[in-house]
Amino acid sequence: MSTPQAAGQVWAHVGQAFTDPGYDVVVVGAGRMGSACAHFLRQLAPQQKLLLLDEGGLPSEDGATILAPGLWSALDPAPEDLAEANWVRQQLATAFGDVSLESRPLVALQARKTADAQPTAAVLHRFPSLAEVIDPQALPWATLDERAVTYRPGAVALSCGQQAVRRGADLMLNARATLVPGGVKIERLTVTNTHEVVTHETHHLRAARVVVALGAAGPHAAEHDLGVHTAHARAYRQAPRLNVPSTRDTPVVRAGGLTLRAQHGGFTLVPPIHHRDPYGYVPQGGHLTGVPTGLRRETLEDLVALMDAVPVLATEALELGRSLSDVPGAWLALPGGLARGRPLHQPLTEGAWLLLGGPQADVLGLSTAYDLAAALTGVAGRPWH
Amino acid sequence: MSTPQAAGQVWAHVGQAFTDPGYDVVVVGAGRMGSACAHFLRQLAPQQKLLLLDEGGLPSEDGATILAPGLWSALDPAPEDLAEANWVRQQLATAFGDVSLESRPLVALQARKTADAQPTAAVLHRFPSLAEVIDPQALPWATLDERAVTYRPGAVALSCGQQAVRRGADLMLNARATLVPGGVKIERLTVTNTHEVVTHETHHLRAARVVVALGAAGPHAAEHDLGVHTAHARAYRQAPRLNVPSTRDTPVVRAGGLTLRAQHGGFTLVPPIHHRDPYGYVPQGGHLTGVPTGLRRETLEDLVALMDAVPVLATEALELGRSLSDVPGAWLALPGGLARGRPLHQPLTEGAWLLLGGPQADVLGLSTAYDLAAALTGVAGRPWH
Repeated sequence: MSTPQAAGQVWAHVGQAFTDPGYDVVVVGAGRMGSACAHFLRQLAPQQKLLLLDEGGLPSEDGATILAPGLWSALDPAPEDLAEANWVRQQLATAFGDVSLESRPLVALQARKTADAQPTAAVLHRFPSLAEVIDPQALPWATLDERAVTYRPGAVALSCGQQAVRRGADLMLNARATLVPGGVKIERLTVTNTHEVVTHETHHLRAARVVVALGAAGPHAAEHDLGVHTAHARAYRQAPRLNVPSTRDTPVVRAGGLTLRAQHGGFTLVPPIHHRDPYGYVPQGGHLTGVPTGLRRETLEDLVALMDAVPVLATEALELGRSLSDVPGAWLALPGGLARGRPLHQPLTEGAWLLLGGPQADVLGLSTAYDLAAALTGVAGRPWH
Repeated sequence: MSTPQAAGQVWAHVGQAFTDPGYDVVVVGAGRMGSACAHFLRQLAPQQKLLLLDEGGLPSEDGATILAPGLWSALDPAPEDLAEANWVRQQLATAFGDVSLESRPLVALQARKTADAQPTAAVLHRFPSLAEVIDPQALPWATLDERAVTYRPGAVALSCGQQAVRRGADLMLNARATLVPGGVKIERLTVTNTHEVVTHETHHLRAARVVVALGAAGPHAAEHDLGVHTAHARAYRQAPRLNVPSTRDTPVVRAGGLTLRAQHGGFTLVPPIHHRDPYGYVPQGGHLTGVPTGLRRETLEDLVALMDAVPVLATEALELGRSLSDVPGAWLALPGGLARGRPLHQPLTEGAWLLLGGPQADVLGLSTAYDLAAALTGVAGRPWH
């Protein structure tokens, strides 16, 4: 048996034999929330035996982590959550190595003057490259967040998972979990030479505590596996690309709920989320003047409504795609069913907790994962208080 | 050729030969909005030759008209629309014969005291039958609308269509319309002996004015046929039945956005609409503790949230159904994409107008149809001003 100081074991494929060593905690899902929770659990309770597992890799490839905007801004959290958000910002800067953290002011364009707004024209003077993107006439006022930073949430999740393993957590990849009372059933998956994913072997793990960190799929697993109904919902968000040059000095721009994030020399667009998608909705592309697009219609309508303020959206610089697979997209959890619900955790049944990130995970995800880890290990006090 | 005084012709099936007599106006869709528009057009401009047509019967069976709550309440329109709504109420009482108009106070339950609220317990004293339905503790305050009336929107549509024909409008049923510049293409439908709906014959009608009154399908037709994009949306609303006895004296109850309308000796539930359904959504039933229901999940969640205030929702009196077809439902237009958008009309292309009812059609639908008829015929002034 490994001591808390020794690194944990990693099972990446079914060729590596597994015997259940007996776990105190199993974290299901190695996206940003699950990996962070595992990381903080190792910090706070190194004596507990921990397993982090995912149906895919580390970080989980299928969910919202990879497509998360990776934008920390003080404009996003509710005022009462700002101290917590500041702690997250400090963690991003110090705790995870190179996560491509870049200081990038956020320019939030608006139609009306507010107390802390300045003329958009003055902002354009400071960031001349934005002249190619926005029309200062349409949204003549702007609020600046000078403390905004961008980063890669996938890199944070990877670092969290790696640090957890270094401190003794075990990690199992390519393993599907079903929640059962008192633990989890895991199916170790493999791919046949006809490219079919099949179950190689099944294990029943008992664990006093199970953390369900499956992103938008978490509430469904809670209901399907454990019979616990929750009020959470989900929405399918696509992040289309806008091929207009951006540099290290290009700020993040927000207009009408749309965020334009300078990335890879261009922009990634992060559309607003207005509300949940209904149960059973199958994401699909829309049409623009009869031509099929990969972008869903609701997002297309939002972009069309912004073409005055962001004229470049009306050009070929916007990658609309021809079918759904052309535009990166993922299901996003909506905690509490709310389009701006903050990350949260909640008990499901005796010994099982749900951990949800969602639209504000960039700003409050790490702290929420910490909060659950601290609650599970009886640690009082939170570092942001 | 018929004079304005003579009744119009009715083509109900393809056995009746049709030759285009030349129309000034074609109204596409014989639901509540299209029928009312045809009715007012005959009133305001009897010299114009008019055709009302529908893919089904009169009233149109497939849309929201048949399932509309048929509830007029002064609590529903915006304050600035109240005079208009009052005119609609007067029309309902006087202009359409027997539409099952019944005076039925509306009891709107609420958690907090407002200026015009009274204790729910006092309301229960006046309407003792409600004690079987609601718990006065959960929502202790109530606002009363003593002027509320219930009626049958389908009967109003039928009366409108019949009056229009009596005054000279032609009516064609079982005819599908495609909007084309300057008129409509109509396909007269028939059913083969293998129950297949097929096109029997096609006509191209020229008309100076076309009114598109296709309900939730109108905006799609405008975009698909005419290439005109609009901001309107739609939502699928189901009206489940609650088998608790109601009488002529039972008021209409509203709690948390849900309306319980006494009907046929029980109640029809009219769930709240929170937002549009996305493009491509296919309505489907949900699950309650693992059992499939005919009720969509979002509505199910709303009802579960109200079980404290309306305990009878937690009993077998609520007809959940087993599949979608068990629970009556229809697509509802959301004018402007808004869950509470008021009825409206708008020009589409030269000579084509869109007419939309939606969630507030019970209160402002007739007046909006009148307004379009008056605008199309150059009539100044509106009777509610």
